[in-house]
Amino acid sequence: MTTLLTPDELEAALRTIGAERYHNLHPFHKALHGGRLTRGQIQAWALNRYYYQASIPAKDATLLARLPTPELRREWRRRLIDHDGTEPGTGGVARWLKLTEGLGLDTAYVQSLDGLLPGTRFAVDAYVHFVRDKSVLEAIASSLTELFSPTIISERVSGMLRNYSFITEETLAYFAPRLTQAPQDSAFALAYVKEHARTVEQQQAVINALKFKCGVLWSMLDELDYAYVAPGHIPPGSFRPQDDR
Amino acid sequence: MTTLLTPDELEAALRTIGAERYHNLHPFHKALHGGRLTRGQIQAWALNRYYYQASIPAKDATLLARLPTPELRREWRRRLIDHDGTEPGTGGVARWLKLTEGLGLDTAYVQSLDGLLPGTRFAVDAYVHFVRDKSVLEAIASSLTELFSPTIISERVSGMLRNYSFITEETLAYFAPRLTQAPQDSAFALAYVKEHARTVEQQQAVINALKFKCGVLWSMLDELDYAYVAPGHIPPGSFRPQDDR
Repeated sequence: MTTLLTPDELEAALRTIGAERYHNLHPFHKALHGGRLTRGQIQAWALNRYYYQASIPAKDATLLARLPTPELRREWRRRLIDHDGTEPGTGGVARWLKLTEGLGLDTAYVQSLDGLLPGTRFAVDAYVHFVRDKSVLEAIASSLTELFSPTIISERVSGMLRNYSFITEETLAYFAPRLTQAPQDSAFALAYVKEHARTVEQQQAVINALKFKCGVLWSMLDELDYAYVAPGHIPPGSFRPQDDR
Repeated sequence: MTTLLTPDELEAALRTIGAERYHNLHPFHKALHGGRLTRGQIQAWALNRYYYQASIPAKDATLLARLPTPELRREWRRRLIDHDGTEPGTGGVARWLKLTEGLGLDTAYVQSLDGLLPGTRFAVDAYVHFVRDKSVLEAIASSLTELFSPTIISERVSGMLRNYSFITEETLAYFAPRLTQAPQDSAFALAYVKEHARTVEQQQAVINALKFKCGVLWSMLDELDYAYVAPGHIPPGSFRPQDDR
């Protein structure tokens, strides 16, 4: 990339990255929503994805600590409230534990992270470190995968309810609020990036930040597919499903 | 673990971790040495592993900067010399580029990291961050996978020379010096850990550090096997072999 894009051209470039690299294109995602997984495989997904959910507030707090204005900090504080809630049992992390509990996993085991795939840990930690170490512009840009999440959430909820008898609307309570939260979050982040990426270098950095984040989400599904879908190569020490209904 | 181990019991516990978790047990390792991979698949391995090799001096320099005595720093400085060499074209990183070049990869492309699997980057970066963020004792313990590397190197060199017509001793020049360097390095690190892990908590931390490092190496092979071995799921943007002889 050698010429400066208009803000709308930058947005188009970012949306193209989503169309090519977002994890709704991953084979594991298709298997999950298409009803081709066992309960044990879905447990493995929910257990590993828990570490992502539980690290999002750490990611947002890391960025919050670097933001220069009350306006930006208020916006990012709202994300913390969404994920951590206002009292025990509320917020996105707690709702994710409803999902793992509904799937039959022991909550203390999930929270211990003992069964986590090493690759999940490395990918999620890479996201938190990115937001700590890169520019604020790149850190905000890395959140832009939320531009693409309402579609995947709709597919996920309808597909999982239709295809798995052990999945209920209550189990999937995590997802409903995200359908309104994610568009609000991504609208702010997109407007910020379009306004502040004013040089070729900054625009390239924004594009690379979104590619990086797509790689985080994609790599998590690579590990799950490799470990838990036939023939299955679960690494030493990671979660082993007890039942495979 | 609730009782203090003797130094020799600690060593035995560490060797058990290697026997259960070292990446010589991984299916990709067995395929590589057993002659079951194509040249393109071996290119993918060498290209991704290059990022590990190129990051080892960064890892060692990060630890060097935290070591408290001239004795420890001299020991760790030797590792830097082994990997970075004494003049251009010498040292382990340069010898690894002989391997990628011998496999037909463009050196500038390898060094650009453009074709790297995201999962490789996350795993390798996790190792560098571990050495920066954990205690010096844990950082030194995480190097102890070298206890197990002479065996894997012997298997690798003999297996690859026997099974692939496009692999020569010159291509594999990286490995010969490692057969003497790795035992020297790991003997020092093992003695250090046996002397300094004096509480149950420190011994558990040392054990966890070695498990963590085994997870780094294992996860790199997970990603390679998933991306490049049949059916193959190469992530968007990563290296695609041009020839599959």
